[in-house]
Amino acid sequence: MTDTFRASLPDFSHERDAFLSGARSPVDLLDDCIRNIDASEATVRAFAHIDLDAARRAAEASAQRYREKRPLSVIDGMPIAVKDIIDTVDMPTQMNNTFYAGHQPRSDAACVRAVREGGGVILGKSVTTEFAIGRSGPTVNPHNIRHTPGGSSSGAGAGTAAGMFAASFGTQTQGSIVRPASFNGVVGFKPTLGKLSTDGVHPLSRTHDHLGVLGQSVDTVWALSRWVGEIAPAQDSDGLGGPVGAPLPANAPARLAVARTAGFDDLDAASRAAFDSKLDDLRGLGVTVIETDQDPFLADLVRRLDRIAEVSLRMVAFDMRWPYRSYLDAAPDMMGPRLHDLVKLGHEVTLDEYRLIRAERADMRRRMMELARSYDGLVLPAASGPAPEGFEYTGARTLLVYMSFLGFPAFSLPLMSVGDMPFGLQLAGFAGGDHKLAQHAKWLLANAR
Amino acid sequence: MTDTFRASLPDFSHERDAFLSGARSPVDLLDDCIRNIDASEATVRAFAHIDLDAARRAAEASAQRYREKRPLSVIDGMPIAVKDIIDTVDMPTQMNNTFYAGHQPRSDAACVRAVREGGGVILGKSVTTEFAIGRSGPTVNPHNIRHTPGGSSSGAGAGTAAGMFAASFGTQTQGSIVRPASFNGVVGFKPTLGKLSTDGVHPLSRTHDHLGVLGQSVDTVWALSRWVGEIAPAQDSDGLGGPVGAPLPANAPARLAVARTAGFDDLDAASRAAFDSKLDDLRGLGVTVIETDQDPFLADLVRRLDRIAEVSLRMVAFDMRWPYRSYLDAAPDMMGPRLHDLVKLGHEVTLDEYRLIRAERADMRRRMMELARSYDGLVLPAASGPAPEGFEYTGARTLLVYMSFLGFPAFSLPLMSVGDMPFGLQLAGFAGGDHKLAQHAKWLLANAR
Repeated sequence: MTDTFRASLPDFSHERDAFLSGARSPVDLLDDCIRNIDASEATVRAFAHIDLDAARRAAEASAQRYREKRPLSVIDGMPIAVKDIIDTVDMPTQMNNTFYAGHQPRSDAACVRAVREGGGVILGKSVTTEFAIGRSGPTVNPHNIRHTPGGSSSGAGAGTAAGMFAASFGTQTQGSIVRPASFNGVVGFKPTLGKLSTDGVHPLSRTHDHLGVLGQSVDTVWALSRWVGEIAPAQDSDGLGGPVGAPLPANAPARLAVARTAGFDDLDAASRAAFDSKLDDLRGLGVTVIETDQDPFLADLVRRLDRIAEVSLRMVAFDMRWPYRSYLDAAPDMMGPRLHDLVKLGHEVTLDEYRLIRAERADMRRRMMELARSYDGLVLPAASGPAPEGFEYTGARTLLVYMSFLGFPAFSLPLMSVGDMPFGLQLAGFAGGDHKLAQHAKWLLANAR
Repeated sequence: MTDTFRASLPDFSHERDAFLSGARSPVDLLDDCIRNIDASEATVRAFAHIDLDAARRAAEASAQRYREKRPLSVIDGMPIAVKDIIDTVDMPTQMNNTFYAGHQPRSDAACVRAVREGGGVILGKSVTTEFAIGRSGPTVNPHNIRHTPGGSSSGAGAGTAAGMFAASFGTQTQGSIVRPASFNGVVGFKPTLGKLSTDGVHPLSRTHDHLGVLGQSVDTVWALSRWVGEIAPAQDSDGLGGPVGAPLPANAPARLAVARTAGFDDLDAASRAAFDSKLDDLRGLGVTVIETDQDPFLADLVRRLDRIAEVSLRMVAFDMRWPYRSYLDAAPDMMGPRLHDLVKLGHEVTLDEYRLIRAERADMRRRMMELARSYDGLVLPAASGPAPEGFEYTGARTLLVYMSFLGFPAFSLPLMSVGDMPFGLQLAGFAGGDHKLAQHAKWLLANAR
């Protein structure tokens, strides 16, 4: 019996060319997905719900559109999963909690509707931890089934790594896209806060909740994210930027800052060595990589980032009064211990403290934007090391929470490994700079592997 | 038989003092509401659902807190209704559409949760037009039961005017708070876009949807709005401003601009005379009131405002693809003709046009903020006249949509009448200036009646 269920799926950006030329069809790509699902789902358990009949109907309709040379969008035919805290009108949405067992929403989330309008092929719901913050689901890591896939977008990361779909919607409130992307060796993208609609996404903390994508490549996650940003407008968003329908260019970043926070203390020697070695690779490729001892402004900012883990969690806990206090009233026994703990923590946070945290967030954002004048982005590990063994603990969030709190965009790129396990490089950008950041991410993944 | 069901309810700001002194209790105030409900609800029909037993339990718990001198908030004991497109965990939420008949949400909307945490007394769900934009509900205008109460927050306006509750949550996407407030002679407040969470509010157009309040006085609507802004944080909001728990001061505006758009052409002579006479009153009170012929920048901006009615509706129609296209797929016969028409209109709007509209909105916002340097606000009618006779047409939205599109705050103040019907003065402010605007609204209502 094998321990690894890593499998590849043809990259959607190339598949799309093949669909247009007639060499392949979305049904062929779906068949590849199904082959991988048949090979690994019984063990990997990436899906909370699966509907391959519906997926086949969608793929056949997409194939017909390509035959007629009129695909609906850049995601037409893309095999996609939807994290199970995101509403789907034709599949239950169960939050990995019995309070929502069998729950059937009456409408799709805005992002899911966007997928349908673009001709995407939805295979099913990917496993989430309980309400994206509590107890783990059944998913294992395809790279080693004794290890966690990370959370909370567990099925999204594992299912992509096992070649079951090209991409899955994920969400990040603290570290739930970047971390499972790192652990499963796939690309994760958390856009700027507010750029993608969270309507129809079950809330955890609306000041921190980001919709994003985990997927097989930068092209794939960008195509899906950008489409959603256009077709499902969020309250005051102008989308992710970049010309509509044009391929994403790969552009080298000129200058990157290393966000070497105290959170690096959590890394073991091998993980730290892998990261430092990757920085040397980047320098070898001509990228200027700046450490804190070379830039006092950066050094000051990095010290401020160390404050975030604590204040962010207190802000999240305050926000969780809605709707979790009512869940604890209605069904306390159904709610996991972490939910109880966080709601209790939220009771400690006064309005005055919350206001101070809000102001601190605004301060740090302004300082980050000052950094944007000198750098193309920040680099740091996308987790505190490779996926730990075991399942209940889905990994530290320390290095991930900075960008969640600030609401700034971040990629996890599968550029490193420690032992036999993948380890992601986190490339973080600046508010609204999603399109530029994606171009740098694409270049790094192509050149710095 | 009487034609009018206008009834007063003691103002909550004074009641609260009486609760604290022990002279009155929240149960007494609820009894006043119930007396008015008994007198008029059979005719006025402000409620889509009512639960007076639950309200009594909440009022008794509130009374107990006041006896112990530890009310939970500035809204403890306030009798409140919730527009029936806003989720309530203990009452159905039916959108005035049979597709949602009997629909029971599993959690409260964020704003409803905030009311419960503040000790507010929820009496029931106030009538909405279909999904806040389609067919009218059964509500009539308490000032004259042959006239519309306006929409879409029909029950909120009528129920306040009939003394059934102190305030009701309403929502405004085009004109749905300011207009029914004007028609029913009550105070309406639509805060700056994004300041109050719309989580758990059924979507119409997320780029335009505002949560707000209709109520008996500026103090009452401000107390409720401000509390929600603090306790149910929206994505990137810093709340409505003003010191926590302090009474709202009344401050005279020094300088107001008249937004005399082409929309004034819809007003009949009596309505226009009432408005112009009110401007004279303001001048008599020492307020500088500037017309477009006195300020070329204002004149230019007012011409731009005339563009809004058309582009705003096209933006709303585009946004309505989610979730209305899926409703039309699933249950076309259940959806009213206006929903069909708007979704069809949305199909005409391309991504390129949408992008241009978004840029136009940003331009106009910047110009409005330039105006903020010279004025305390804008004044214009809060509707195109008093409530029309009949029920299907809930009134023109022309003069209301400007602030909905811009996302800037606006009050409707019951300062005028035409014939026997009320007619509101709209006081519009600038993004983030909600607290200052509320102070001016309070002063105007106290001094310019």
